[in-house]
Amino acid sequence: MFFYLWLNRNPTVMMTFTEKLTRSIQSSNSVLSVGLDPDPDKIPLPLRQQISDPHDLVFEFCRRVIESTKSEAAAYKPNLAFFEALGSGGLRVLESLLDVIPHGKIIIADAKRGDIGTTAAKYKVAFFDKMQVDAITLNPLMGLETLDPFLDDSSKAVYVLTMTSNRGAADFLQTPVKGRLSLGEYISEHLFKKQGESAAPLGMVIGATQAEISGRVLRANPGAHLLIPGIGAQGGDPNRLRDLLTDHVGLPLINSSRAINYAGGDNENWEELVALKASETRQTLNPITQNYIV
Amino acid sequence: MFFYLWLNRNPTVMMTFTEKLTRSIQSSNSVLSVGLDPDPDKIPLPLRQQISDPHDLVFEFCRRVIESTKSEAAAYKPNLAFFEALGSGGLRVLESLLDVIPHGKIIIADAKRGDIGTTAAKYKVAFFDKMQVDAITLNPLMGLETLDPFLDDSSKAVYVLTMTSNRGAADFLQTPVKGRLSLGEYISEHLFKKQGESAAPLGMVIGATQAEISGRVLRANPGAHLLIPGIGAQGGDPNRLRDLLTDHVGLPLINSSRAINYAGGDNENWEELVALKASETRQTLNPITQNYIV
Repeated sequence: MFFYLWLNRNPTVMMTFTEKLTRSIQSSNSVLSVGLDPDPDKIPLPLRQQISDPHDLVFEFCRRVIESTKSEAAAYKPNLAFFEALGSGGLRVLESLLDVIPHGKIIIADAKRGDIGTTAAKYKVAFFDKMQVDAITLNPLMGLETLDPFLDDSSKAVYVLTMTSNRGAADFLQTPVKGRLSLGEYISEHLFKKQGESAAPLGMVIGATQAEISGRVLRANPGAHLLIPGIGAQGGDPNRLRDLLTDHVGLPLINSSRAINYAGGDNENWEELVALKASETRQTLNPITQNYIV
Repeated sequence: MFFYLWLNRNPTVMMTFTEKLTRSIQSSNSVLSVGLDPDPDKIPLPLRQQISDPHDLVFEFCRRVIESTKSEAAAYKPNLAFFEALGSGGLRVLESLLDVIPHGKIIIADAKRGDIGTTAAKYKVAFFDKMQVDAITLNPLMGLETLDPFLDDSSKAVYVLTMTSNRGAADFLQTPVKGRLSLGEYISEHLFKKQGESAAPLGMVIGATQAEISGRVLRANPGAHLLIPGIGAQGGDPNRLRDLLTDHVGLPLINSSRAINYAGGDNENWEELVALKASETRQTLNPITQNYIV
């Protein structure tokens, strides 16, 4: 008990990623990840009228989204594309934003990088050493060696694209391969084996697609932490999520980006509406994910 | 003839990507792409002793590599990871560098992005609208829809990861799928079909791996422009390249990064050694690729 209090007060003590994730889920009573997809054209008009510089505007918008959702969210997931679209100044905005995310929340850089050798090592420097995020999304197409530079540190994690629910997933991820129902299932098996040689948890990005396909992907790797997109604007169904998570041991984070970011429309009280949407989303998710929270 | 001169003097006239690529290869008498992988720790000591700020150092190193190789190179391929590893300031360096690459050279952002919907659209803004590079490398794992935002403009191109020659390519890209010898071959077929609905050329990133595997990947899509890594530090064999390119119609760019970037070691005359290495590389490549140059 004393040790627990001491740990909580000493942010310099190194927790493992799984410990930090567990605490963040428990202390927020939530598996909700709030995505940060700031699009200057969609930022509420009242804020756009106050701030003309696009970098300042994006910073302030994200800061207020974070402030309005911090009691509901276990994690934040900045989407790199939306910051890169503002040029190098956009990356500077993201660097500043990381400082305003409350201590203890999981931060996942949604970057979907995937490369080999010294290039992968440099992406690790960019995200783990410079930005100091807790986790990054990675694309495994070029093979498992793309993950290697990210796996030495148990305080970090990777979430590997394994099965997505977008239309285009039918092209490759949902294609049968080597007797498996899908390429995603084959990736999942590889990740399960690879976990044995990794200090960092190898999570999976998983969409709630056809039950049979995604069920087999999860059963191949039941201990993997999950990042599940597609609640909210992308229209994921909570009941499919419930079925998907039956018997899964690894911890889920369920992400909503646009549906929360832009819940306020152009209303003066947009921040309240963002807070309300985050709260409603958490309440929708909690009955489905109660096993992971208590 | 007059029109040709006029075009050459009027950079605002919009050429297609294929026209620009053709001219760049012909005017440099070369299919060499020089990769820019600036690692502050590997930059020649004489330059490191002159410039202490890491951003200024990387800028000046790359500027001199470009200056030393511009008569030998048809294209430059900055590797995003090496710039991102310096934080937002690294992206600013890249933005400045794009201005010192001679007009007429093809610039390929080696970013290997791959995402869907509004995220992919934002990556398009970042690279085509803001940075204004000619082409980007993309990762197709999430499906062909990941390419869509990049395909409207015939003055741009994408190079899609299709078959690589790294060790990890055996994990997924070289796995048989749906009666094809490899997933890469299946991707190649999809790209061939997709070209029909695309204004921008859909190129392929192709490593010179086992002849049978890579040969079938190319035969499935003989008109695709190619970006071929792995000459130089990664140890690709020119003779395998020659075999690979037999009968291929699309134009190849053959990339070397580290072997040229760091050819000077820590010598005082490192720039001359970089120039020499680029020249030697071009001379090795020319007999293999003569069909594409004349």
